[in-house]
Amino acid sequence: MGVTQDNKYERLGKSIREERLAQGLSQRTLAGMIGQPNSHTYITRVEQGKIKIGLEQLGRIADALGVEVRDLIDF
Amino acid sequence: MGVTQDNKYERLGKSIREERLAQGLSQRTLAGMIGQPNSHTYITRVEQGKIKIGLEQLGRIADALGVEVRDLIDF
Repeated sequence: MGVTQDNKYERLGKSIREERLAQGLSQRTLAGMIGQPNSHTYITRVEQGKIKIGLEQLGRIADALGVEVRDLIDF
Repeated sequence: MGVTQDNKYERLGKSIREERLAQGLSQRTLAGMIGQPNSHTYITRVEQGKIKIGLEQLGRIADALGVEVRDLIDF
């Protein structure tokens, strides 16, 4: 498997970013949709792969984007 | 989305169990394959959804089973 352990979160963040932008959502809007209204920086850090996001939070982001968790995982 | 937050780990555990059994692997063998040789109980608890497993550990399990992480996630 080519995906090293550390860049899994980077790839995940990239998928989230691409889906968010495809839907024309700002980081602040997505943050609000997952119940973190004042922390677009949280979304910034998730999209940069700097947060080891758990499946539950990933589930909330997927729900907000109207996709399945597995749609955001390409490894 | 019908999958409540808490049973995501149960569904994931079920997928891991099904894949492990399909390959005729014991929990002890799989534990050894991910570098936790003496803790088949760890695999038991992961398969029961009792451990909030992170993407990196999930990656090790997927690698050991020769599948992609997303193959183990059906939500």
